[in-house]
Amino acid sequence: MSKIRLVIVGFGGMGSWHAESVKNKVPEIEVYGAYDIRPEAAENARKKGLFVYDSLDAVLADESVDLITIAVPNNFHKDIAIRALRAGKNVICEKPVTLNSAELEEIIAVRNETGKLFSIHQNRRWDRDFRIVKEAKDRGLLGRVYMVKSIVQGSRGAMYGWRGHKENGGGMLLDWGIHLLDQAMQLFDEKVVSVDAHLQSMYTPGVDDNIHLFLRFESGCSYIMEMSTNCLINLPRWHVQGTEGTLQVNDWSCSGKLMKLKPNAEMKWTDDIVYTEAGPTRTMAPRPEYTMVELPLPDVHPDWSEYYKNIAGVLNGTESLIVTPEQALRVMNVVDLMFKADAERGARKCCI
Amino acid sequence: MSKIRLVIVGFGGMGSWHAESVKNKVPEIEVYGAYDIRPEAAENARKKGLFVYDSLDAVLADESVDLITIAVPNNFHKDIAIRALRAGKNVICEKPVTLNSAELEEIIAVRNETGKLFSIHQNRRWDRDFRIVKEAKDRGLLGRVYMVKSIVQGSRGAMYGWRGHKENGGGMLLDWGIHLLDQAMQLFDEKVVSVDAHLQSMYTPGVDDNIHLFLRFESGCSYIMEMSTNCLINLPRWHVQGTEGTLQVNDWSCSGKLMKLKPNAEMKWTDDIVYTEAGPTRTMAPRPEYTMVELPLPDVHPDWSEYYKNIAGVLNGTESLIVTPEQALRVMNVVDLMFKADAERGARKCCI
Repeated sequence: MSKIRLVIVGFGGMGSWHAESVKNKVPEIEVYGAYDIRPEAAENARKKGLFVYDSLDAVLADESVDLITIAVPNNFHKDIAIRALRAGKNVICEKPVTLNSAELEEIIAVRNETGKLFSIHQNRRWDRDFRIVKEAKDRGLLGRVYMVKSIVQGSRGAMYGWRGHKENGGGMLLDWGIHLLDQAMQLFDEKVVSVDAHLQSMYTPGVDDNIHLFLRFESGCSYIMEMSTNCLINLPRWHVQGTEGTLQVNDWSCSGKLMKLKPNAEMKWTDDIVYTEAGPTRTMAPRPEYTMVELPLPDVHPDWSEYYKNIAGVLNGTESLIVTPEQALRVMNVVDLMFKADAERGARKCCI
Repeated sequence: MSKIRLVIVGFGGMGSWHAESVKNKVPEIEVYGAYDIRPEAAENARKKGLFVYDSLDAVLADESVDLITIAVPNNFHKDIAIRALRAGKNVICEKPVTLNSAELEEIIAVRNETGKLFSIHQNRRWDRDFRIVKEAKDRGLLGRVYMVKSIVQGSRGAMYGWRGHKENGGGMLLDWGIHLLDQAMQLFDEKVVSVDAHLQSMYTPGVDDNIHLFLRFESGCSYIMEMSTNCLINLPRWHVQGTEGTLQVNDWSCSGKLMKLKPNAEMKWTDDIVYTEAGPTRTMAPRPEYTMVELPLPDVHPDWSEYYKNIAGVLNGTESLIVTPEQALRVMNVVDLMFKADAERGARKCCI
């Protein structure tokens, strides 16, 4: 079977990451060429041994090219994706796939028309921290999960390059927000029944850079996301509460733990108020240690290259597509509503 | 100056706490008597040396009584408060002052008519953890504060006694929710411009017992509250982010820290993506240690008895009232909207 020939359009930070990653880990795909409007980026691709095209038309006219990865600023995704599909190419697009759901619907229509593959590089579905949470939930280790916090706190205060510009589709909701929402909607195989968002522009004028996002799923689960850029004491990456236990992943290194209720450890209640450090309270009095057991986090070892391996499997007819545009459309529908909810002061306007 | 004579109406867990607390710490007030419809509670008051009335009418008819503290289930607050004010008594009411803002407006009308004192026992304004946060914010140690998390996680899974019944005004929003909202609105001397709430009934049917509350203040600050009852790994009690630093209070013992940006510690940026444990990212790459400094938390020592000391000061004409019904009305307006936001699926209905 001949190799799938890949060309990368947009050879900036993520573009060159795609090249290295595929070259080292996905033998089914040949990283053949690149195109970038910036001469220095093109030069960088040439140094890495890639064939450098001098126009997008030249890429699309090259019949030997099977697959295009689009890694340009977000506002150019739609047009390039549609042109590439119409030229008969299979297409991978960096996230966010588009700036809104309407743009994505245009792409999906062309995908349907052409029958080519279209997928989005939601690489963080293979993040180890996320997979630990998913494994724990799917195996029922926590019982029914009803409160989730998914938190990513940086401390450099800035959005970089074009990500700091509204017209390029910059801002945190369209950057990390897309990843965290995609993870949330992969974790819960359920309808999203309400959304809200608090978007603040603190350090990069014109785009949201410190944000809280809120989802409620059909089962009632309350799911909170935070992305911030000037946090000097980090909260855990994940905190997940279920009817039978609580899971915490501390950080990217994936230290953490899972505490479970012991099934038969009976608690004796008294009707008296308990005098705790919190003052008189029964509700918040501590639970005896003997009613709980600590378990290690699930042992999982995902790898981002699995994304491209799946693409190769789909093109070779042996696998079905993992990251579909229909999934991305649900995420973009949520994002559209979040921008509206924020602009209209969310849930209810008031001035109390 | 003669002592202020106090009678406690409702001598359950909190009622007897009021008696002890005032007796030991507030010499200006004499804890004289009690009334409770339950014979065993009345007997308990008698054993503690209090004069036990045999009806509420008898309490209200006793001209020697200056001050009534109401510590009965929430649904009885309004009627007793109004009767007591009309009988010429000064009145302290346990929180939540009423079940909704309309009930409180009725009380305020009678307070205006009678000119007597009416206050709400928002004792948690004197919690040390809260005062640490307030001191840090008021002294500007964090710069402008724009993200706050106020989290209270219990693990016993239950709401106790009448607090588990809707008709008594049970549930977490009207219990701890009132405290955390009052603290939030004390911390920010600003209008609340949006509210949302995710209320779940997980372990006590009929009342909300595991809840997320969301406020946005006029300056844009996003303020999240959580109260949960089956959490086996606790998040910090407070996490507060400002433009110049981050503060964390770990728990009721008030361990924690404050990290500040060093004013002149310049950071050198590169335009390259940083390869972190989180993958390729500039935004979330770590900040060098030398750009930050760790400070101890502010050293504060509030005491709940200051609430009653202020009441005595007001009645003796030397102080103005700290906890006013007008403040409580703002909190109850927020609570009313939160119940609506939850029932109507908050921000925006959707089914994505």
